[in-house]
Amino acid sequence: MKNFSFYSPTMIKFGRGSIINLQKLVEGRYKRVLLHYGGGSIKKNVIYKQTMEQLNTAGVQVFELGGVKPNPALSRVREGVRLAKENNIDLVLAVGGGSVIDSAKAIALGAMSDSDIWDFFLGKESVEKALPVGVVLTIPATGSEASMGSVVTNYDERQKLAVNHDILRPVFAIMDPEYSMTLPKEQTFSGVMDILSHIFERYFTNTENVELTDRLSEATIKTVINNAYILLKNPDDYNARAEIMLAGTIAHNGILGMGREDDWASHQLGHQLSALYGATHGETLGVIFPAWMKYVYRENLDIFNKFAVNIFGVSAFGNTREHVALEGIRRFEEFLKKIGLPRTLTEAGLPTNEFERMADLAVSMGSFGALKTIDREDAINIYKLAE
Amino acid sequence: MKNFSFYSPTMIKFGRGSIINLQKLVEGRYKRVLLHYGGGSIKKNVIYKQTMEQLNTAGVQVFELGGVKPNPALSRVREGVRLAKENNIDLVLAVGGGSVIDSAKAIALGAMSDSDIWDFFLGKESVEKALPVGVVLTIPATGSEASMGSVVTNYDERQKLAVNHDILRPVFAIMDPEYSMTLPKEQTFSGVMDILSHIFERYFTNTENVELTDRLSEATIKTVINNAYILLKNPDDYNARAEIMLAGTIAHNGILGMGREDDWASHQLGHQLSALYGATHGETLGVIFPAWMKYVYRENLDIFNKFAVNIFGVSAFGNTREHVALEGIRRFEEFLKKIGLPRTLTEAGLPTNEFERMADLAVSMGSFGALKTIDREDAINIYKLAE
Repeated sequence: MKNFSFYSPTMIKFGRGSIINLQKLVEGRYKRVLLHYGGGSIKKNVIYKQTMEQLNTAGVQVFELGGVKPNPALSRVREGVRLAKENNIDLVLAVGGGSVIDSAKAIALGAMSDSDIWDFFLGKESVEKALPVGVVLTIPATGSEASMGSVVTNYDERQKLAVNHDILRPVFAIMDPEYSMTLPKEQTFSGVMDILSHIFERYFTNTENVELTDRLSEATIKTVINNAYILLKNPDDYNARAEIMLAGTIAHNGILGMGREDDWASHQLGHQLSALYGATHGETLGVIFPAWMKYVYRENLDIFNKFAVNIFGVSAFGNTREHVALEGIRRFEEFLKKIGLPRTLTEAGLPTNEFERMADLAVSMGSFGALKTIDREDAINIYKLAE
Repeated sequence: MKNFSFYSPTMIKFGRGSIINLQKLVEGRYKRVLLHYGGGSIKKNVIYKQTMEQLNTAGVQVFELGGVKPNPALSRVREGVRLAKENNIDLVLAVGGGSVIDSAKAIALGAMSDSDIWDFFLGKESVEKALPVGVVLTIPATGSEASMGSVVTNYDERQKLAVNHDILRPVFAIMDPEYSMTLPKEQTFSGVMDILSHIFERYFTNTENVELTDRLSEATIKTVINNAYILLKNPDDYNARAEIMLAGTIAHNGILGMGREDDWASHQLGHQLSALYGATHGETLGVIFPAWMKYVYRENLDIFNKFAVNIFGVSAFGNTREHVALEGIRRFEEFLKKIGLPRTLTEAGLPTNEFERMADLAVSMGSFGALKTIDREDAINIYKLAE
């Protein structure tokens, strides 16, 4: 086990009707709230109305900035920073999924700085302070509701970059599984893949003697897969929605990564597909992960055997370790197929003749990954395997 | 799954040499620190020295109060409250195990109040503010390093009571598994039982549809048992010490109880043995839990079957559910025997002719428990089963 820090201060209010907690969470603490949201679906269902009722009862002044799209744009973040500064905002309240939350975090960071917000993503500025961020979660997926990260896309430069700091962890997150019931099937299962990816980036590690987090990770992966199958049959199953929403937070608040070296190569490879072609995050992960697994599994047959045996019940008896590892990957691909996610660039409608361009962008800030370090050539090979 | 709040803001610094983080955690934030510790073993090993070096480098003024004993005494807490008030303490730093941490939390609470500290334990005063508490952990057991609770004993009244509030969660916890290497065998394995008990109090529930926390709990229980066996052979195994120390925090920071009704009957029954006869906490739990299990398992054969099958690998095929449940309990008792803990009142050298006295004290604030509500008669029956 490696030495580590763990810090997850987000106050979570979970369950049916948990929006009722919002008033108390803001009353007396904040005065001027920037309500940040996406394409307006929250105005079609009850979420906007219920949120505003709470904020009004709490007596705070509300400023609005909607219109956040998947792979949130730097331009919208800059608009939010300007708004926050002009109006002396003291809480950025994200009502939505990961894109809205990541955008809110970036606004919260930019609002407390005289530098341009993109400088933080480029590593030119270091994070020291930020406005508090609150969350009303509508899409279980990115885990951003309790994570330290924000990922924003600069469409002018075709760069999708992340900034990470404990200060960006939301102060509270209201998580009502019913708010996720109206999600389209595609978004539900892209979210499932996103959640699994956060566990995978930590689970597939070379760090030894990490029994507890191995087991906690396997517990979470199995729960996500089981409940994804339930939602496939019955999207209105509250308990399955609840299991997946909770797993989404656990997957990415840091607990499963305690004492482990994490990887993030697949995220890095996937991000370029969003930056270049606007592909959605969950979709890119479903395409990249099987390819990455097939490319790297020989580096650590142990963990890939554990994955196959403990998650998918592959029998280790009478089979070579190589066979067991590959069978685990095959069953994971089978799962992706069942939940209707594309497993290849072709299935996702993404180009298969621009591997060098993708790879160049992926390594633009150097090689990456931990289980295996991925350089330009590796990146090309993995994109090819994803063809 | 039930609705729930989850809040665990403690900054954890984990691993070999993690005391090195103490300076930065206090520097510039606190000025007058009350260093609280136990019987002085920290002065025989390196812990006191290393802690003082960090505090001195941080430039804080240190006031000392040692002498905390297992089942920390109200009298010492009152002394700490007086010291803290007289010296304008702004951080209570507990260096020790659960008794020291619980005592520190009570001091932190009392220091910010004009009422007598015991009134909070009696429920006459409600918790609103407390001084921050920091922790340098030396005994993995109670999970108090990240929990909301403090348990203190009033020896004059023979009462062992708890106070619980999020504000009592320590602001930081330094957790170096090497600090636990010099623990006597008895304390190591009492700690193991204490850790398991915190999981059990949440795991054995009637709440349905809690797959993720079921699995996370089983992951943690299995890790604790596996690594206890490793420490039995080799007490100096760093990795096993690390797994158990980390499990101790996870067991009681609230994560395994998310969405579940928890029980706490066994703690309530055990506390009376400490209050009446000064029995150590881990010991009382090892005595009470098997008896409680045998008394209540018919109330929820499902969860006791899960326990038997998923933890101890009991075969469900060809066996009645009753048999499977009992076999799980038997194997748990076998584990207790192997790690050398007393499993009965007799083995623990506790009286077996005072069941009514024990039960009267246990129900003095009413019946308790959740999987099955325990009244006076139930309490007597469970104590009898523990004979």
